[in-house]
Amino acid sequence: MMALIDLRSDTVTHPTDEMRRAMAAAEVGDDVFGEDPTINALQERAAGLMGQEAGLLTASGTMSNLIAALAWCSRGDEMIMGQEAHMFWNESAGPTALAGAQIRLVPNDVNGRISAQDVAAAVRDSSNIHVPATTLVCLENTHNRCSGGVMTPQDTREVVDVAHAAGAAVHLDGARIFNAAVALEVPASELTKDVDDVSFCLSKALSCPVGSVLCGSEEFIGKARKWRKMVGGGMRQAGVLAAAGLVALDSMVERLADDHANARRLAAGLANIDGLTVDEDGIQTNIVIFEVDREKVGDAREVIAALREDGVLVSHSRDQALRMVTHRHITAGDVDEALSRVNGTVRRMAGAA
Amino acid sequence: MMALIDLRSDTVTHPTDEMRRAMAAAEVGDDVFGEDPTINALQERAAGLMGQEAGLLTASGTMSNLIAALAWCSRGDEMIMGQEAHMFWNESAGPTALAGAQIRLVPNDVNGRISAQDVAAAVRDSSNIHVPATTLVCLENTHNRCSGGVMTPQDTREVVDVAHAAGAAVHLDGARIFNAAVALEVPASELTKDVDDVSFCLSKALSCPVGSVLCGSEEFIGKARKWRKMVGGGMRQAGVLAAAGLVALDSMVERLADDHANARRLAAGLANIDGLTVDEDGIQTNIVIFEVDREKVGDAREVIAALREDGVLVSHSRDQALRMVTHRHITAGDVDEALSRVNGTVRRMAGAA
Amino acid sequence: MMALIDLRSDTVTHPTDEMRRAMAAAEVGDDVFGEDPTINALQERAAGLMGQEAGLLTASGTMSNLIAALAWCSRGDEMIMGQEAHMFWNESAGPTALAGAQIRLVPNDVNGRISAQDVAAAVRDSSNIHVPATTLVCLENTHNRCSGGVMTPQDTREVVDVAHAAGAAVHLDGARIFNAAVALEVPASELTKDVDDVSFCLSKALSCPVGSVLCGSEEFIGKARKWRKMVGGGMRQAGVLAAAGLVALDSMVERLADDHANARRLAAGLANIDGLTVDEDGIQTNIVIFEVDREKVGDAREVIAALREDGVLVSHSRDQALRMVTHRHITAGDVDEALSRVNGTVRRMAGAA
Amino acid sequence: MMALIDLRSDTVTHPTDEMRRAMAAAEVGDDVFGEDPTINALQERAAGLMGQEAGLLTASGTMSNLIAALAWCSRGDEMIMGQEAHMFWNESAGPTALAGAQIRLVPNDVNGRISAQDVAAAVRDSSNIHVPATTLVCLENTHNRCSGGVMTPQDTREVVDVAHAAGAAVHLDGARIFNAAVALEVPASELTKDVDDVSFCLSKALSCPVGSVLCGSEEFIGKARKWRKMVGGGMRQAGVLAAAGLVALDSMVERLADDHANARRLAAGLANIDGLTVDEDGIQTNIVIFEVDREKVGDAREVIAALREDGVLVSHSRDQALRMVTHRHITAGDVDEALSRVNGTVRRMAGAA
Repeated sequence: MMALIDLRSDTVTHPTDEMRRAMAAAEVGDDVFGEDPTINALQERAAGLMGQEAGLLTASGTMSNLIAALAWCSRGDEMIMGQEAHMFWNESAGPTALAGAQIRLVPNDVNGRISAQDVAAAVRDSSNIHVPATTLVCLENTHNRCSGGVMTPQDTREVVDVAHAAGAAVHLDGARIFNAAVALEVPASELTKDVDDVSFCLSKALSCPVGSVLCGSEEFIGKARKWRKMVGGGMRQAGVLAAAGLVALDSMVERLADDHANARRLAAGLANIDGLTVDEDGIQTNIVIFEVDREKVGDAREVIAALREDGVLVSHSRDQALRMVTHRHITAGDVDEALSRVNGTVRRMAGAA
Repeated sequence: MMALIDLRSDTVTHPTDEMRRAMAAAEVGDDVFGEDPTINALQERAAGLMGQEAGLLTASGTMSNLIAALAWCSRGDEMIMGQEAHMFWNESAGPTALAGAQIRLVPNDVNGRISAQDVAAAVRDSSNIHVPATTLVCLENTHNRCSGGVMTPQDTREVVDVAHAAGAAVHLDGARIFNAAVALEVPASELTKDVDDVSFCLSKALSCPVGSVLCGSEEFIGKARKWRKMVGGGMRQAGVLAAAGLVALDSMVERLADDHANARRLAAGLANIDGLTVDEDGIQTNIVIFEVDREKVGDAREVIAALREDGVLVSHSRDQALRMVTHRHITAGDVDEALSRVNGTVRRMAGAA
Repeated sequence: MMALIDLRSDTVTHPTDEMRRAMAAAEVGDDVFGEDPTINALQERAAGLMGQEAGLLTASGTMSNLIAALAWCSRGDEMIMGQEAHMFWNESAGPTALAGAQIRLVPNDVNGRISAQDVAAAVRDSSNIHVPATTLVCLENTHNRCSGGVMTPQDTREVVDVAHAAGAAVHLDGARIFNAAVALEVPASELTKDVDDVSFCLSKALSCPVGSVLCGSEEFIGKARKWRKMVGGGMRQAGVLAAAGLVALDSMVERLADDHANARRLAAGLANIDGLTVDEDGIQTNIVIFEVDREKVGDAREVIAALREDGVLVSHSRDQALRMVTHRHITAGDVDEALSRVNGTVRRMAGAA
Repeated sequence: MMALIDLRSDTVTHPTDEMRRAMAAAEVGDDVFGEDPTINALQERAAGLMGQEAGLLTASGTMSNLIAALAWCSRGDEMIMGQEAHMFWNESAGPTALAGAQIRLVPNDVNGRISAQDVAAAVRDSSNIHVPATTLVCLENTHNRCSGGVMTPQDTREVVDVAHAAGAAVHLDGARIFNAAVALEVPASELTKDVDDVSFCLSKALSCPVGSVLCGSEEFIGKARKWRKMVGGGMRQAGVLAAAGLVALDSMVERLADDHANARRLAAGLANIDGLTVDEDGIQTNIVIFEVDREKVGDAREVIAALREDGVLVSHSRDQALRMVTHRHITAGDVDEALSRVNGTVRRMAGAA
């Protein structure tokens, strides 16, 4: 039987053998008492990489984002974020439902960037009792729904400056921040040191089984620790997870360049398939979003099902847009094989259409 | 001294002498026990006018909107509304902060209408655990921030149909619903009978001192009564306010046509002033929003201050847009005098610019 | 037909003729713009009487209490109050549901007082991430569910001192604070000047149709104004209600001594009826709570129904306890007539039991 | 240097070698897609042991409790629980702050049981708009703050019956349910099959590094999955944690009898130390709470610090009460050595007092 090529997400990556060994051997302690040495080492390491004072291991990127909303926003405040933000679309409305903060969307450009001007214009005058206070601006780098697009250090600083001028903090959802750093060939800290807090995921492109690290000032992390406890993210001997994280930071970052090359290869191939449209130049990291022509090929949901039958797993992005993500388990050969299968599927459906 | 012409809002209207007499003579009881006959009469009357089963007196339009959000949305649900909705912009983020429901904005057209297609496209697939359930669609008629634009019965039904097909309820913020009914020359019930609940204000164009009435099914109003209690809107002998409301429903509705004529007269005059821009055709009721040319005349905030010195009170809408609202205290003569003063102010500022 | 004697609550009181005249003649303005002179006068007057800097008219005592919870407590804080507090029992869980603050109950003594020691012991050590921060202590004077019992200035100061030492604010639910002041023969301000905010009701013993005034520092009232807007309590020309409030403050306070005398007369009479138990000495103001012997007389709910048939309206307090409240419409003669009817009802039920 | 004897909590237990090997070898998948076979196996196994239909792995016992509150309670509902409940005291007020549900406390007996009568009496009549609806009753077995006391199947059923009769669900915080089962010599399912949902911890007495399993009906777990996502508990390849859980269920349950014997040995020894008081008969599982005489020995906080210097780690329970917990790393010899050290510490402090 043909092996499945799983391009749904880099979240499907399995831990490496080295990670498994590290997990088995991890020195642990009770982290609720602050006594897990492996967690402490990971948090310190992560903070250093992000150019921040302190770090906090959480169970997921969604939890890190939720904690940031809880920590920066009082009930009834307003958060500004891009109209394609993962926090708005795909986190079960937690930041709104649990933090009680209203979301104000501003445009994302094709690479997922929001502009300082749009942020400045969206800040509310909270001296008016009819309107909420703007207390948080959320960035996302790389940008999931904008085909893995990146923000540069300069892009980031501009938004941070207007946010701070308005008295608002800046949270960076950096679930895939190392993909951005590798793509831009800058240290990750160049993308993160100016924001008020940043989270990144161990479990996506970095291949760890579980975990995200939230980084910020000592004061912020002190507060975040309490919010993490409240949402149930206080884990006891999670050093077993942190051990994998330390391996990932050592060995999984540089290789992201391969994923990016594979993503470009994938995009180039998709662009050659009649009935599919992809913005090749917009592929900056490991996410490829492309459009399926409904008339020529068929409904996106049906294309996903047909591709699955032909051995290629992809995600639905929105409407007629599908998403493929390259990762550690996908080789250049897998890309070519996937393209061949996709071409077959599309041709078959186009013939039937 | 020159009398001020107050065009900031129809909320500035004072009760009529007849209302004051009715308030003084009102038969009252303890409404928390359901024993205020004047409130009961108003609620029944209002429900009838709206084509709904039952009514509930509340302290304000904001409270009615908040109660609707609390009653229809569970924590973590999503509400669809127009991008210029008063509930999003000007209600202190209460529906989000207190009901815990996320707001999803869809486009408003120039008259404040949202389209059935946009609503249908915005409904979420809540079988996906990453996304909130869409449980409420909010309409606004007339539309405050869209220059008092109206939705027709047909416009309304189309949105209601797609909302119901998606399992969502429809709340109509009808703060100025009688302005819409008068403008369209239809009974108000034609605009309200198809929605799941509707609120209208006694205290704006209808000149009452205080109050809004929320109308819906018996079941909905039963729930709304509890939410009203929770937010502190249970008032004891509020029959004194209801008495004014009954007078308003008898005597204040038909005269709204005069306000509309005055608004058109105002818009026509403003259109003739160099440096101001107004979409005359878009003036459907009693709200006139117009743009001030920053280069020619100056910053909007400064224009407001200058107009105040010249005896004309106006509101800020957004950016360079100002808002004037006609109402019971504004005659055609006042409109002409206001135009004359505005022309003077603008000419003076343009000269200095 | 026999006239009903309504002892359910002092909330059933109707406005006086003087109030009705004042309401009809009230000078009004748009209070959301701060322009209602009658509201401004009431708020200033109320603040002065409470020994506080500023006041804010709200729609109800429940709304005032809710605003205090919203203003003092962040999501996840803890509020300390007495185990019989109205805010815990009878406000639809709004302080918890909308402010997200947890309620920590401490004992009320027979007069509804909570002790400084109990408050001190209940304060949490919020340096521990497992526990909420204690940010508010709520007092109630007079105490509704504790038979209208009073706290003295000394009682109040003791609790305020321990609360402040712990960094918590003190809110006083003074719905019937004038009853306490009259009973203690002290100016109301002696009972209110030491707390951080206090609310009192115009609509209960003071006979106004609607309203409560929340008083505190300028800074607190500034915040409260926004929370009031959020919960829908911003009312436009509510000067009509404030006018009645001003009359009440002039003419309704001293007469409360009559209500208190009538309550003692009532308690003495009830104590003489076999099958009823009342703590006569505990009757300090206008509320009389008494126990019905289930064996001898019957179930409390049935007693209420039987009394209604016999022309006496009373409330259920809890279990076998019933509540009677004296007020402006109850004369000494009404008390005697009510006692006669109650005696008849009880004798009839006891005979059948 | 003397080895520390850590009796603070069974949360300090480290994973066994077998667990570490299982974690390293675990077959994993993306659990957000439901594709982690080890998680699926654990959840199925757990559900079977609890006599429930389905299970859900969460990051902690606090998260399981929070999810239960979110799933069963709408904003503004009321939850009944014991006055010593961990959910009230030690979960950062999350159930209140995030679910918006008010907590109503009823008495715990010495073993942490709540009575059916007290629950029945505490149910609210939610037809009254002033009061919240009672939608959840929370049990805790064993009971943390009540010295690890147990509820029998009969105790449980009685509360479940009155809760169900009142239309409320029953959540069982069974963080240490296997300790209860072992102590009572019944299958765990006898203690859990009658409730609507139950959570138990892998990470406390069972020695796993991280995790709790929430069990209930298929419908409940379907909802819980969404709430888990919202609070950030969706973990990708958490099969590494589940693998340890499966080992624990195989090998860590029967040995709890040793912890219980050690706890009784510990209690007996403490009872013999002058200045300490312990209810020996109340020690049913692995938690020993005892009182320190302030006069004779000193302040509890100081005793904890002195014991730490002498090589014994204990927790503070409340006031003058300390807590010791036996677990996998504590042998009978450790108990004797700990008693010897405690005796020395107490004698030294008593001499100084």
